[in-house]
Amino acid sequence: MKIGILGYGNLGKGVECAINNTSDMELVGVFTRRDAKSLKIQTPGAKVYSMDDMLEMKDKIDVMIICGGSATDLPKMTPETARHFNIIDSFDSHAKIPEHFANVDKAAKEGDNIALISVGWDPGMFSLNRLYANAILANGSDYTFWGKGVSQGHSDAIRRVDGVKDARQYTIPIDSALKSVRSGENPVLTVREKHIRECFVVAEEGADLKRIENEIKTMPGYFSDYDTKVNFITQEQLIEDHGGIPHGGFVIRSGKTGWNDENNQIIEYSLKLDSNPEFNACILVAYARAAFRMRSRGITGCKTVFDVAPVDLSAMTSEELRANML
Amino acid sequence: MKIGILGYGNLGKGVECAINNTSDMELVGVFTRRDAKSLKIQTPGAKVYSMDDMLEMKDKIDVMIICGGSATDLPKMTPETARHFNIIDSFDSHAKIPEHFANVDKAAKEGDNIALISVGWDPGMFSLNRLYANAILANGSDYTFWGKGVSQGHSDAIRRVDGVKDARQYTIPIDSALKSVRSGENPVLTVREKHIRECFVVAEEGADLKRIENEIKTMPGYFSDYDTKVNFITQEQLIEDHGGIPHGGFVIRSGKTGWNDENNQIIEYSLKLDSNPEFNACILVAYARAAFRMRSRGITGCKTVFDVAPVDLSAMTSEELRANML
Repeated sequence: MKIGILGYGNLGKGVECAINNTSDMELVGVFTRRDAKSLKIQTPGAKVYSMDDMLEMKDKIDVMIICGGSATDLPKMTPETARHFNIIDSFDSHAKIPEHFANVDKAAKEGDNIALISVGWDPGMFSLNRLYANAILANGSDYTFWGKGVSQGHSDAIRRVDGVKDARQYTIPIDSALKSVRSGENPVLTVREKHIRECFVVAEEGADLKRIENEIKTMPGYFSDYDTKVNFITQEQLIEDHGGIPHGGFVIRSGKTGWNDENNQIIEYSLKLDSNPEFNACILVAYARAAFRMRSRGITGCKTVFDVAPVDLSAMTSEELRANML
Repeated sequence: MKIGILGYGNLGKGVECAINNTSDMELVGVFTRRDAKSLKIQTPGAKVYSMDDMLEMKDKIDVMIICGGSATDLPKMTPETARHFNIIDSFDSHAKIPEHFANVDKAAKEGDNIALISVGWDPGMFSLNRLYANAILANGSDYTFWGKGVSQGHSDAIRRVDGVKDARQYTIPIDSALKSVRSGENPVLTVREKHIRECFVVAEEGADLKRIENEIKTMPGYFSDYDTKVNFITQEQLIEDHGGIPHGGFVIRSGKTGWNDENNQIIEYSLKLDSNPEFNACILVAYARAAFRMRSRGITGCKTVFDVAPVDLSAMTSEELRANML
């Protein structure tokens, strides 16, 4: 399988690492908006191309993994690319998925390609686990907790506060809420009861720390609905102690079975990730394998993780999987 | 969708409850080896039939859910039934799955039917999670823990000891082993380091308790490789405190990502079940839906959970799933 990577940020770099861990895939090249000559990649034999030259590689790439941002890149980039390549993206603006799906589906069908969108852990593996758990426990409640992990959006929001030089925000699930859900109590939880937000902030010299803390804690849409903790630290401490991009979370379904709903059943899926982008990258690469196989069977148009049979993700054959993993 | 249940033990009763929780399935009847007139079921409108009259119902049932035991029932019952019906079973003798698959595949193809085998939580949901986690984290280690839960096989083994009237055995994962796995330490664990076995035993009056305890603890294949705790209790206590059939467990994959394997990533799937058979029953019913849909698309022969796209398990449409669960 010949793979291309479109975009070489954290996600694209993670995809390169993940391809390096497979035995059935080859990285042909990385496509960039930057000056191709200035970009150094790690894979021996793979090349860097300008995005403008992408179409010349049309017949040399089986699946293009698009590693752009959901806010501005993917809504345009994914349909345009799907016209010419089999593609995967990790579009994660949940509310806009139906619109993105429609645009990509049209383009992919016109190009006779397959396009797998919203592949990652959320949307992606978390969505799959919601689906499986709901299909199994028809009578129950869903809970999703995120963290402990870095929220890029919330970190950015803090950086826009006057007097802030740099910031890192962690979303942290509240342990007592998790325990209550796991016990089968089926609690009704407010936003504030599920997660706390902890901020590490580097202030500009002489800035009014009280004002900054207050502006953060009362920021609507980001912090005002949560219990928020603000810690002021130095730039050095931020780099030293908060340089990673950890994340994770929990998808739990708590359901009832029995003729009189007398039995509790709890399904839980959880992730504890040192590197959020590298984990998303691994998922993209597994689904690139599936996209290639599905296209080989004549399937075209836009698909999601819901449409992919698990067998298509594995490098093993069906026989090997039945003998070793079932 | 019109469903039949073949066999009315704990699993069959659980399937009846699970069908009652769906909006798109109808239980047509229960088929039994026992005297059909003696069997009372709970679903208004559904009938009890003798297994011998099954073929007369051939055109009135879309999927037959086979609820027999893996040791002696299913190896014969599943291929025989797959010749005439679309079927699902929960065959759980892991080592014999390839042989069972071949037999069922031949029969199902001859009958132009679809047959989904080994559907439940292990094999089944645990297998799926092993596959997903392995496909995502190519470089890592797998861990499966079972319990806390009742092992029927181990309980039966204790009952065969001279002087034992009744018994219940719990398999319990060892917390420190779970913690070590979750921390990313990738420990190499012996059988003894993963689970303990706790037994509640009702002895016959005057029996030599020391001898019974010793025979249990040294029993090869069942207890000798484990740290085993034996508690003697009365029959009343056994009924009162140990009447349920709880189970559960954990599937964990601990992997590395990054060009130099510098990041730990942990994927965990866990179940905490008040009723083991009722949970397996819910999974069978969700996969009955998938079997019906796959057969409607012309798919025949033997399949497993690995071959089923998640979308086919849900009563929701693809559009609804994308809008609400992705």
